[in-house]
Amino acid sequence: MASRATRRSDCAIAGTLDLVGDRWSLLIVRDLLVTESLRYGDLLASHESIPTNTLADRLRKLEDAGILTKERYQDRPPRFAYRLTERGYALAPTLDALATWGTTHLPGTRRLIG
Amino acid sequence: MASRATRRSDCAIAGTLDLVGDRWSLLIVRDLLVTESLRYGDLLASHESIPTNTLADRLRKLEDAGILTKERYQDRPPRFAYRLTERGYALAPTLDALATWGTTHLPGTRRLIG
Repeated sequence: MASRATRRSDCAIAGTLDLVGDRWSLLIVRDLLVTESLRYGDLLASHESIPTNTLADRLRKLEDAGILTKERYQDRPPRFAYRLTERGYALAPTLDALATWGTTHLPGTRRLIG
Repeated sequence: MASRATRRSDCAIAGTLDLVGDRWSLLIVRDLLVTESLRYGDLLASHESIPTNTLADRLRKLEDAGILTKERYQDRPPRFAYRLTERGYALAPTLDALATWGTTHLPGTRRLIG
């Protein structure tokens, strides 16, 4: 998690963007809002074709930020499933606002959540 | 603006993140929500110390996306001021949601808008 020492400022928006301000993190949160628990392969198969190294990186950062948790569902080889924490579910209003802006201002887009 | 052909999917959230899904764009929008019109130097002086080449790049992309407009306020040398369009102001609920998440979940952060 971005510590207070590494934050760019004390602005709550900047602090949140330090954690999820990229093209992919909030799409992972979106998928976990739609389906409560997803395996790595499920997330990899999402519409937007996230590159596997990007997915692994973002999952680790989101776990570090306390936004999702992973649980091992298979030992050999180890396989994990991911779900949102309470902190992660609390991002739902942000995703809702992004979806509202998109459906209003980007013709041809549609709301996949809520 | 990301055209329909270059979008990652028809998801409204993904489409919006194609335009503003990075660590800086929404901070520029934040500053223009707080102060209606800002010069390049004002934006450069914001709390988070955005690098000048990043600021120039994001301003161009936000203008291409129809989120802000620029107007020349001096001719020699040319100097510009920036303000949000109606489309840009419509991002306020997204920023409000990010601020709410931050103030709730990131100790030491505070709300600079709304």
